Amino acid sequence: MPVGTLASVKGMPQDVLEELGVQILLGNTYHLYLRPGVETVRRMGGLHGFMSWDRAILTDSGGFQVFSLTELRKVSEEGVTFRSHLDGSSHFFSPESAMAAQIGLGADIIMAFDECTEYPADRERARTSMEMTLRWAERSKKYFEEHKGEVPWAASNRQSALSTHGLQIPRSARDDSSFKSREPVAGETQTLFGIVQGGMDRELRRESALRTVEIGFPGYAIGGLSVGEPRELTREIVESTLEHLPAGKPRYLMGVGTPEEIALYAQMGVDMMDCVLPTRAARHGLLFTSEGKVSIKQAQYAQDAGPLDPNCRCRVCSRYSRAYLRHLYASNELLGQVLNTVHNVTYYLDTMRAVRHAIQLGERARFLSEQSGPKP
Amino acid sequence: MPVGTLASVKGMPQDVLEELGVQILLGNTYHLYLRPGVETVRRMGGLHGFMSWDRAILTDSGGFQVFSLTELRKVSEEGVTFRSHLDGSSHFFSPESAMAAQIGLGADIIMAFDECTEYPADRERARTSMEMTLRWAERSKKYFEEHKGEVPWAASNRQSALSTHGLQIPRSARDDSSFKSREPVAGETQTLFGIVQGGMDRELRRESALRTVEIGFPGYAIGGLSVGEPRELTREIVESTLEHLPAGKPRYLMGVGTPEEIALYAQMGVDMMDCVLPTRAARHGLLFTSEGKVSIKQAQYAQDAGPLDPNCRCRVCSRYSRAYLRHLYASNELLGQVLNTVHNVTYYLDTMRAVRHAIQLGERARFLSEQSGPKP
Repeated sequence: MPVGTLASVKGMPQDVLEELGVQILLGNTYHLYLRPGVETVRRMGGLHGFMSWDRAILTDSGGFQVFSLTELRKVSEEGVTFRSHLDGSSHFFSPESAMAAQIGLGADIIMAFDECTEYPADRERARTSMEMTLRWAERSKKYFEEHKGEVPWAASNRQSALSTHGLQIPRSARDDSSFKSREPVAGETQTLFGIVQGGMDRELRRESALRTVEIGFPGYAIGGLSVGEPRELTREIVESTLEHLPAGKPRYLMGVGTPEEIALYAQMGVDMMDCVLPTRAARHGLLFTSEGKVSIKQAQYAQDAGPLDPNCRCRVCSRYSRAYLRHLYASNELLGQVLNTVHNVTYYLDTMRAVRHAIQLGERARFLSEQSGPKP
Repeated sequence: MPVGTLASVKGMPQDVLEELGVQILLGNTYHLYLRPGVETVRRMGGLHGFMSWDRAILTDSGGFQVFSLTELRKVSEEGVTFRSHLDGSSHFFSPESAMAAQIGLGADIIMAFDECTEYPADRERARTSMEMTLRWAERSKKYFEEHKGEVPWAASNRQSALSTHGLQIPRSARDDSSFKSREPVAGETQTLFGIVQGGMDRELRRESALRTVEIGFPGYAIGGLSVGEPRELTREIVESTLEHLPAGKPRYLMGVGTPEEIALYAQMGVDMMDCVLPTRAARHGLLFTSEGKVSIKQAQYAQDAGPLDPNCRCRVCSRYSRAYLRHLYASNELLGQVLNTVHNVTYYLDTMRAVRHAIQLGERARFLSEQSGPKP
């Protein structure tokens, strides 16, 4: 899920996202709450209407940004008081207000308000934090069940929010047979996922998973990872936690990762992931290619007439040279950021396409071998 | 001609330029000379190969930027010594070196190296400056005739510079029936235009025009306007100068203007214009619409669900709301700059399309009335 922090995947128009085959993007509730504000988005028909995107959207609860971006925050059982990173103004998030904000933003999938346990944290701290996340999960669910009908598009379809003023999603995007943009049925509401915490302790993670499943959500996320721990530890925790999350419901690993990691975790059973890495790295000239990472600002590329990635079929790699991309980055040209982002996002999407393909081939092979009966 | 200063129309990929129907763009020799440097561009097959653009390109000579962007410059009969605005390094431009640079950059149309007379300038100063521009025009032409064969694509076609490494202009862009991207014939060279100066004095302008035509160029530009003079004066000078430039050759008014101005001058007989206004204003949130200028950052648009310009059919106006564009600009999002630029460039191109249409209708009406014979 490309990250569209402030209702925009930085530099990429929505029609380009559609062309690349993006099915779902992520919006950050913390950022949108500050700008343009939940009320503005609600009035525009929710995020879909506001950003003219009628494929899927997931919002996080704001919990992570509050912990990672702000200072002078005060955590209590009630929630978190914090100061905006923009202007220092004081705000308060709770499970209830985070649900209210996400309902107003109207994403398809929304997240319970959790506490992202800091790293490192000893076992006692990780337990305390986990227990609060579970209590906050109950409160998130309760509030959501009571108010989910208030989602901006519940009583009407999404198109009306756009078509009132003659705006429309191009037909070509809506009829894309590989992905059906689906109008929500009247009365349909959002989906709330729960989040597993527990720090780096396998037992706590197991307990958090089981007790979150006990509360009951249509999907589950693994939070609190990629917070500075060694990669091998991330992998262990993911592997063991997945065992305790029902395979029949979406399992979402938050905030990872590199192309190698997303392929690895997908093959382990993770269904959804988000990461700023492809987009943020792109804006710093760090490009992922089938031949390894390329730091395009390097002088070695200044007269390199070849494509960025000879194995990539994106619009960037089929048209522009490394020399040109290097020049754009070195000259701080907007187009450099745009093209770099198009490539990196394509690379990530292609990586996942390859994983899905491999999974399907594996299933087909298994099916065929079952069909042919026991070996003589 | 959209301005692609550093081999990029800021934020707009070349395929978007093609879709909008851009036939020719402008590159700035001063900027490209500094970054990435003429040699790099030459090795990539000239600007066309470097930026993967196979429609037309025009480069200015660097003269204007040297006068407008740099300090500590010293003008002599030989040329201009100046310091780079980037790092203060010392450089020298002359008619000969400006031709050499433009030959290396390989644009289809290149400009004589002139002195852009400052404003205001008294008659004596305007004459002195005009005389030097005429001497520099002779030197420009002489050097060009002696070295034009050195253009990077003279001995081969442009595609080879790109195709060596598998890069290609999409067929859809090349086969666009409204504009034939034309491969240069082997041995074909660039076209050098002369520039008329003379300050704000009609007589000097007339003399400059006649004497530039006497030197002889395939096309002529009117320089040294839009340098701070009142608009009405610009108009007078353009009108009177045009009379002395052959109507059968392209007449290029440099550095103008607003949508109203470009329509006006085109109807007066100007064939080509360039201006940073559409692109630069876009990046400052100033958008030209059929209903007047819109400063999109204004709070009044924060919840405006309507399109930017209801009469515009560009991708921005047919999809996104003013509220969204306002949010993007206020949040300093890259996409805001990209979408604003797409709209403004479309608006300028549509303005010129309307002018061409009106000219054709006028000609058709004139033709029909001639056909029907004298009135009884």
